[in-house]
Amino acid sequence: MKKVIFIIGVSGVGKSTIGQLLAKELNIPFFDGDDYHPKENIAKMSNGQPLNDADRAGWLAILNQLAKDQIKNNSCVIVCSALKQSYRDLLNSGLEKNYKWVYLSGSFKQIIKRMKARDNHFMPAKLLQSQFDILEKPKNAIEVDIRLTPKEIVKKVKDALDHKSEFGLFGLGVMGKSLSRNLAKKGFKISIFNRELKGTEENVAINFKHEFQELSSALPFNNIESFVNSLEVPRKIMLMVNAGKITDMVIKDLMPFLSAGDILIDGGNSNYNETKERFDYLKSKGIHFVGAGVSGGEEGALNGPSIMPGGDKESYKAVHPFLEAIAAKDENGLPCCTYIGTEGSGHFVKMVHNGIEYVEMQLLAEVFTMLQALGNNPDQIADILESWKAHSNSYLLEITIDILRKKEGDDWLVNKIMDKAGNKGTGNWTTIATAQLGVPSTMIASALFARYSSFYKEERIVASGNFQSNESSKFDVTNDEILKVYQFGRLINHYQGFKLIDEASKSYKWDLNLSELSRIWTNGCIIKSDLMVELVTVFKSTNNMLTNEHIIQQIKKSKPAVKKVVSQCVLNDLPIPTLSESVNFLNNFAIAKSSANLIQAQRDYFGAHTFQRLDDDSGKFYHSTWK
Amino acid sequence: MKKVIFIIGVSGVGKSTIGQLLAKELNIPFFDGDDYHPKENIAKMSNGQPLNDADRAGWLAILNQLAKDQIKNNSCVIVCSALKQSYRDLLNSGLEKNYKWVYLSGSFKQIIKRMKARDNHFMPAKLLQSQFDILEKPKNAIEVDIRLTPKEIVKKVKDALDHKSEFGLFGLGVMGKSLSRNLAKKGFKISIFNRELKGTEENVAINFKHEFQELSSALPFNNIESFVNSLEVPRKIMLMVNAGKITDMVIKDLMPFLSAGDILIDGGNSNYNETKERFDYLKSKGIHFVGAGVSGGEEGALNGPSIMPGGDKESYKAVHPFLEAIAAKDENGLPCCTYIGTEGSGHFVKMVHNGIEYVEMQLLAEVFTMLQALGNNPDQIADILESWKAHSNSYLLEITIDILRKKEGDDWLVNKIMDKAGNKGTGNWTTIATAQLGVPSTMIASALFARYSSFYKEERIVASGNFQSNESSKFDVTNDEILKVYQFGRLINHYQGFKLIDEASKSYKWDLNLSELSRIWTNGCIIKSDLMVELVTVFKSTNNMLTNEHIIQQIKKSKPAVKKVVSQCVLNDLPIPTLSESVNFLNNFAIAKSSANLIQAQRDYFGAHTFQRLDDDSGKFYHSTWK
Repeated sequence: MKKVIFIIGVSGVGKSTIGQLLAKELNIPFFDGDDYHPKENIAKMSNGQPLNDADRAGWLAILNQLAKDQIKNNSCVIVCSALKQSYRDLLNSGLEKNYKWVYLSGSFKQIIKRMKARDNHFMPAKLLQSQFDILEKPKNAIEVDIRLTPKEIVKKVKDALDHKSEFGLFGLGVMGKSLSRNLAKKGFKISIFNRELKGTEENVAINFKHEFQELSSALPFNNIESFVNSLEVPRKIMLMVNAGKITDMVIKDLMPFLSAGDILIDGGNSNYNETKERFDYLKSKGIHFVGAGVSGGEEGALNGPSIMPGGDKESYKAVHPFLEAIAAKDENGLPCCTYIGTEGSGHFVKMVHNGIEYVEMQLLAEVFTMLQALGNNPDQIADILESWKAHSNSYLLEITIDILRKKEGDDWLVNKIMDKAGNKGTGNWTTIATAQLGVPSTMIASALFARYSSFYKEERIVASGNFQSNESSKFDVTNDEILKVYQFGRLINHYQGFKLIDEASKSYKWDLNLSELSRIWTNGCIIKSDLMVELVTVFKSTNNMLTNEHIIQQIKKSKPAVKKVVSQCVLNDLPIPTLSESVNFLNNFAIAKSSANLIQAQRDYFGAHTFQRLDDDSGKFYHSTWK
Repeated sequence: MKKVIFIIGVSGVGKSTIGQLLAKELNIPFFDGDDYHPKENIAKMSNGQPLNDADRAGWLAILNQLAKDQIKNNSCVIVCSALKQSYRDLLNSGLEKNYKWVYLSGSFKQIIKRMKARDNHFMPAKLLQSQFDILEKPKNAIEVDIRLTPKEIVKKVKDALDHKSEFGLFGLGVMGKSLSRNLAKKGFKISIFNRELKGTEENVAINFKHEFQELSSALPFNNIESFVNSLEVPRKIMLMVNAGKITDMVIKDLMPFLSAGDILIDGGNSNYNETKERFDYLKSKGIHFVGAGVSGGEEGALNGPSIMPGGDKESYKAVHPFLEAIAAKDENGLPCCTYIGTEGSGHFVKMVHNGIEYVEMQLLAEVFTMLQALGNNPDQIADILESWKAHSNSYLLEITIDILRKKEGDDWLVNKIMDKAGNKGTGNWTTIATAQLGVPSTMIASALFARYSSFYKEERIVASGNFQSNESSKFDVTNDEILKVYQFGRLINHYQGFKLIDEASKSYKWDLNLSELSRIWTNGCIIKSDLMVELVTVFKSTNNMLTNEHIIQQIKKSKPAVKKVVSQCVLNDLPIPTLSESVNFLNNFAIAKSSANLIQAQRDYFGAHTFQRLDDDSGKFYHSTWK
């Protein structure tokens, strides 16, 4: 289809250079609008006088006629500043849809710098400001940043003329769909892909596109090759597919169509070890790889998730405009997205994020257990939790309140839900990482195991018959005491989670910034909370939460209530494995001299594993004959 | 050196056949003793009359003279039944050390069967019993089982004549040394190897051999090729080296010298996944591989360990005489060694054994914490534990008593030991396996993490300053109540450990026998105990301990004490993470309806992960809009 391509922008952006290159590339005629100025206009400009709209009207009519004449036979490129919408309306008059605006954009500073570097132009630099003053940025133009090289600019324009998309989203599950809409709302031209599975996944991308207004310019695909070819080079493709084998299969399927320099972003919950392996593999093929944790669930993905990209820093630079644009914003308006570190560090911190989340959820479940034991119904519990918002608010607290209030007929829906909690691997991996790295992040393991226990429902029913207790004391605790235990458990949980990240950072030499990490978790993600906001400051001065004076005071203040509530639960057979673990952890951690000396003696006794001595700080190892 | 090789054994074992083959192989003359009987002896035998000792004396003198004549020029083979020691004394008279007995052994039944299959022998089968009646098995003979093929028998005899060893032990650390001495004491001819490392490991094998009488016939090596060549084919080599990369390096070093059919036994604490990988790799090279867990520490290895061999069942058949001979014996005299199952199942159960061991040790450390808090010194604690032997004895309890009694000057040694507990990976792997298999073996994780916590000694000291509690109630519990908690914790620990094994057995299709497994853990290993003996019977009728009536009653009886002691510990800031976990686990497990419904609702709220309903047993998944 024939088109007049108008290249526009203020003086000095390089319109003529780009226009000539593009025309040559497309093998179509080139016209410089300046060559068609009436003599009086040129004289005026040479005298340093700006043109007024009357001066321009005749000139624009000449160019419009030129365009209409050309389009009869061929496409063409016409360059012209065309700063106001009214000028552009004159230029494209009568061209129907056979034209395209290419807007070269740069800042005043950049352009001044350029103009000073050249001297063969008839327009004095001092007139530039007047151009910026009247500039009305075009809508629906192909906008290209002049900091790119001329070659890159021409490539981008060509791709855009070919309707190429800036960003590809592969996999339209719950998260993929939400992220696609988020990207489209931010004005990005995207391609979206979903596989075609007869009977279960048919026409997913095209149907999805038609469902939402913001996707009107998105290109939908169910063919991988077409999807890849629809993207500007270097391609930026975000994978939102199941972690593990599926991710590898998808990468394998994409490979034949990718070119060196393309960038894949894995936005799934991939295992951080696998992310490193994929990074290394793809690097050997010339493909960049960014392993990005994405948190926020369906809603966060749609309105702004927290994003944790790791891997090659250079690749991050290429994709950060997209990721930071769609990310949630913190209380200072900064994006909840930051470069995390090398290798699989982005997926590692996302994994620990989920581990912390497992514990936060389990703590609320244990609070639920206790408040139920006090005789409250779900609505009453929601009322109590509502009052906690002032002291300890979090996204998970808020949704728990919503859940507890949800009724179905006369009963609460929560009462009808099967008590088997599922899991998708990240809690499992966090527990494995904590075991492998030698870090006692005990609550994450405890919360994971509580879910596992819930799964053995049939055995639990048998056990409940066999072990029913017929004696129990009165469960005598106040709501405020339960709040204190909850706050205590959350503090220990966050300590353990960040401790795990800090130790991993040391082991893997990732040099992670805990303050920045907590900052990007203050919004968009599932574990956003008032506590997380506090931690941004805490982690500016230490990586060990438990040395912060305010936190120490909070813990000490809540300890009497913790002791009372946990002991009362034990006396009443109430299961609170994770809260109970939090207090045992602190008791075990905050003792200068533990009972581990006995264990070390046992190991030396039966296995000759040796021991160190308190009275020899050289670290020397001793062996004793014990009998 | 020239030798007369006497091949002996009852009639029908194939002495002539073997003798001829051997003589041909060695290229020396062959003589059949029967050809030298005086006529009167032959007549007597043909009439079915047994020879008496007087009949034999002249004949044996003839053969002795034959031997003495031969040895002047050459070696030779002489076959002759020579059933009594007195006959043999006549035969070798005056031969100094230039003779060797080769005893072909078979059962009456085997030989009768053979005799019936042939008819060219002058001796009636009915006389065979009289031969067995007078048979005195020779000492110091090369004994070979007639069930082997003639070719195999000749090979074995040749190897033995070459002084080849029956079994090789690679790696002379604490465990390797003890196992070597154990094998040698059981009469096996062994080769022992240790690497040579200048300055740290020099002449280890030869020095070790000279240290112990029982190793007088062991062959010591520091050269791998010589070590391998010193072994009878098919070679049987047990590796007692560090698990992980070292094991792979050792296998790589051995490979060039091994032949198809050789058998490697990995007796280290290898990861069960790696054992499967090694099994597959070695199989492709024609080498058999047995992954054998070995427990018992230094002392057990020396006097009888518990051995858990897994892998190829055929290979186990070839090595079981060695492993079962050196294993501990259970209360019925059966070896604490049994074929476990395919793949890495031997190392898996050893890993869980160690996980159970971690918990048993941690429980004792927590008991130590409590009894100390009551004001007892180590000797007084030992007295209390001594009284527990009648109710709950175990190897670990016994050694703990020894440890607590050990004094150094005026103080107890245990008080001087650095309270940092080490670990060598198996507790870590068990925790990982429990996470991966979805089994809530929570106490193993808890005991592992307690060791990890102990390692952060410097942070603990800081924390102890920051979190010092100045208020605590009276720790008001009795010794008997502490015993009950200890017993309770042990029951839950054993439940969780065997549960993990049972679930792994289902997942990997290993078909493990829990009763047989607990049987081989009743002696020789670190977790042998009275409880383990009880479990042999329990597991004959169920794989789920918690459904056994006696165990249910034990748990219910101890529960009131458990509740009291655990709550008292919490009120007094005493760390008992693992005991505390045991009661929380049971509380969480023995409830028909848990709070996991809330977690599942949260997951559905933010991640659309769906839920099942209590009122729909079709298992259908639902999603709700919660707000």
